Amino acid sequence: MNQDAQRRAAAEAAAAIVESGMVVGLGTGSTAAHFIDALIRRVRDENLKITAIPTSLRSDRQARDGGIEVASFATVKQLDLTVDGADQILRGSLHLVKGLGGALLREKIVAAASKKLVVIADRSKLVDRLGGKIPVPVEVVKFGWESTATRIEKLGGIPVRRWPKESDQPFQTDGGNYILDCTFGPLDDPARLERDLSHTIGVVESGLFIGMADMAFVANASGVETLTRKGS
Amino acid sequence: MNQDAQRRAAAEAAAAIVESGMVVGLGTGSTAAHFIDALIRRVRDENLKITAIPTSLRSDRQARDGGIEVASFATVKQLDLTVDGADQILRGSLHLVKGLGGALLREKIVAAASKKLVVIADRSKLVDRLGGKIPVPVEVVKFGWESTATRIEKLGGIPVRRWPKESDQPFQTDGGNYILDCTFGPLDDPARLERDLSHTIGVVESGLFIGMADMAFVANASGVETLTRKGS
Repeated sequence: MNQDAQRRAAAEAAAAIVESGMVVGLGTGSTAAHFIDALIRRVRDENLKITAIPTSLRSDRQARDGGIEVASFATVKQLDLTVDGADQILRGSLHLVKGLGGALLREKIVAAASKKLVVIADRSKLVDRLGGKIPVPVEVVKFGWESTATRIEKLGGIPVRRWPKESDQPFQTDGGNYILDCTFGPLDDPARLERDLSHTIGVVESGLFIGMADMAFVANASGVETLTRKGS
Repeated sequence: MNQDAQRRAAAEAAAAIVESGMVVGLGTGSTAAHFIDALIRRVRDENLKITAIPTSLRSDRQARDGGIEVASFATVKQLDLTVDGADQILRGSLHLVKGLGGALLREKIVAAASKKLVVIADRSKLVDRLGGKIPVPVEVVKFGWESTATRIEKLGGIPVRRWPKESDQPFQTDGGNYILDCTFGPLDDPARLERDLSHTIGVVESGLFIGMADMAFVANASGVETLTRKGS
């Protein structure tokens, strides 16, 4: 299986655990899109009855177009399950780095309101240490973002404001904030960094998801492995 | 002196410590407006040269109209001094509750980028315990605010979304967020509550300013008292 086929296999494994009557959080990104596709098929072919809360306009549109009933927090207090991709998954604890797709804030809010967060990914996302090659995306308020960047530097990070190639303005999240991609190197204590970032004035949320994922479906060339969280 | 005259007296005491060449953060609210007025007079009458960073559109307009040069974080890395009002000031530590005026996020960002935060208030704001009669304003992202409110309830608060009388929609901050006015009763450990709130997913910032104020000018009927921070 190539990487995309692996992602689809992981997404289908997650779609298989969804049960009728559930309220399901829909992640954002290419792997999450495979999950939404698989859910749409189950809704059509098996008459699965679910309600979904999407984490982005993209996922919202995909779900509605496919005939999935979409709700919001105005009517839903708690979700049964959220399924989402990740940029890195720490082996064992299942701590995550997310947000390269730009939807980390809504993804975190939906995950926090869910009884269970299930992560889907191909094997390349599974790491023994978070950080390293990839930066930690941090969503910050626009006002004074330069001073927020300075405070993140004091935590040891190198923040770069996300700016899409060939765009004449910086990337803006659905909530109207900026993303600072912050390089910290390999993280010895991601839980501590997450606390420090969330306590930094001007930071809305970081892309570190600590102790949130309960389970991961991780695909490699030969199949899908099911991981459950171990330790804190 | 009536209450408004007391606020003006405190504001004038703070304006007197501003020196030429300083970059000054301008708070928001009725007491901060007196400070901006006093600064405008010093700029006009004494040819005081300052640059200001305002914390709201209101304060921005007042400063510009009065001839104060206004800058932004695009050009300013650090402020020398920010002067702002508060809803409550804790005797000794000078921990604050702020945000009844709705500008807490920008006020906090500007204060955090300042070498010194000076608070101005009338005596009624000085308390032996924060909270109690007044709620702690908490700025939260719109998406999923209902689920954020549930998380704040788990911290022991009673959150009420701010909704101006006679308005057909809830209050929105300059950053496009909601304010939840959260009643916690008298606070035994405001520093801990502030950490817990900042770590709550969906919270942008709380109105608890812990260890930020260095000095306060507090006016009563007979004059202005100068308080400096004691302890942590």
